[in-house]
Amino acid sequence: MPPASDTTAVVLLSGGLDSSTALAWAIRQQGWKCHTVAFDYGQRHRVELEAAARISSSMGACSHRVISVDLRSIGGSALTDDVDVPMDAHDDSGIPVTYVPARNLIFLSLAAALAETLAASRLVIGANIRDYSGYPDCRPEFLQAFARTVNLGTKAGQSHERQLQVVAPLIDMDKAGIIQLGLKLGVDYAQTRSCYAPQADGRPCGHCDACHYRQQGFEQLGMLDPWR
Amino acid sequence: MPPASDTTAVVLLSGGLDSSTALAWAIRQQGWKCHTVAFDYGQRHRVELEAAARISSSMGACSHRVISVDLRSIGGSALTDDVDVPMDAHDDSGIPVTYVPARNLIFLSLAAALAETLAASRLVIGANIRDYSGYPDCRPEFLQAFARTVNLGTKAGQSHERQLQVVAPLIDMDKAGIIQLGLKLGVDYAQTRSCYAPQADGRPCGHCDACHYRQQGFEQLGMLDPWR
Repeated sequence: MPPASDTTAVVLLSGGLDSSTALAWAIRQQGWKCHTVAFDYGQRHRVELEAAARISSSMGACSHRVISVDLRSIGGSALTDDVDVPMDAHDDSGIPVTYVPARNLIFLSLAAALAETLAASRLVIGANIRDYSGYPDCRPEFLQAFARTVNLGTKAGQSHERQLQVVAPLIDMDKAGIIQLGLKLGVDYAQTRSCYAPQADGRPCGHCDACHYRQQGFEQLGMLDPWR
Repeated sequence: MPPASDTTAVVLLSGGLDSSTALAWAIRQQGWKCHTVAFDYGQRHRVELEAAARISSSMGACSHRVISVDLRSIGGSALTDDVDVPMDAHDDSGIPVTYVPARNLIFLSLAAALAETLAASRLVIGANIRDYSGYPDCRPEFLQAFARTVNLGTKAGQSHERQLQVVAPLIDMDKAGIIQLGLKLGVDYAQTRSCYAPQADGRPCGHCDACHYRQQGFEQLGMLDPWR
């Protein structure tokens, strides 16, 4: 088994604003060789899968994969079930119905398997403070515990020089700060997709949580979202 | 969200000897209401999926699900790749080529999501000492770290009474001990499937690691494997 490369990373790329910025940070600010991975999990907002492929290619990632995992058979979320995505009700208290049980745990686990196969030493995720008030699997404590678990449970983790690091470069940033960083690094936000319940033609609904926080971010910078 | 039920468990059921025994332990010795889950991950030995469904039903589980997750797109293992499964070469040192990167981490993560949806308080896995010499994701330290991670990362884990426990009842047992326990609990081992590289008609190859350790277990008890 080859030693892990300090410059190779696997980046979780949903095609949204945060993960696209995290990818730009890894490639353009850190100079890492990045392999991107998206997940086809039965989400309503499937336009993000096409966006992820486009962004991976235009940012110069080494490879892009879509891993299929059927979270519909688990249920429990407005993002995969026949439960409605809430519109114009941006409640900051508690965990939203768009929470998908253990989603980041599942995605990070699959990405960790890919990192092991590719001998990558880093896993990059766009988790951030805006989300972790609502989603427990975006918290730094969770990400640290995950890294420890993966190193105990993988072949790679058994050797000190192949231990995997989980990197969340946006963890302390708000949406406006993330957009500023991305613009500096040349992210084309017109390519990114964030909406949880896009219209039939792929355009954003403009009313779900994801649309709301994205708009708020651009507004704080006195900008129009280039996607709209 | 309903409180977790102390008597409800999700059991990882591959259809093999260990997981079938773990299910018998959970239903017949602990009296838990068990929901079983198997994974269609592109494995060569797909007969185990049919075995899992049969065993779940005959043991009286409340429900059985098959979750699809495409580990072939990750690669890195003789169980999913076009790499040959080793025959008649039972090397106890090091991690075997049948190791699937982060497999238990991925399966436990999906099962944890299901446990959250079903308000189950326990996750039962048939990991044991025979395997954890070779597979790092069968070690008790890994299972403990996983439980901590899942409780930090799920909605259920945020409330003390809904924390998930990971239970590995066979962790310290060898194959012969597992078979003895299962026979006491009425497991019909003729229904279970263990072989990594079954023949076209579903019969075991008799030469892979899984066949070898299974045969050894029955031989130690002076028995014939009822499957053969």
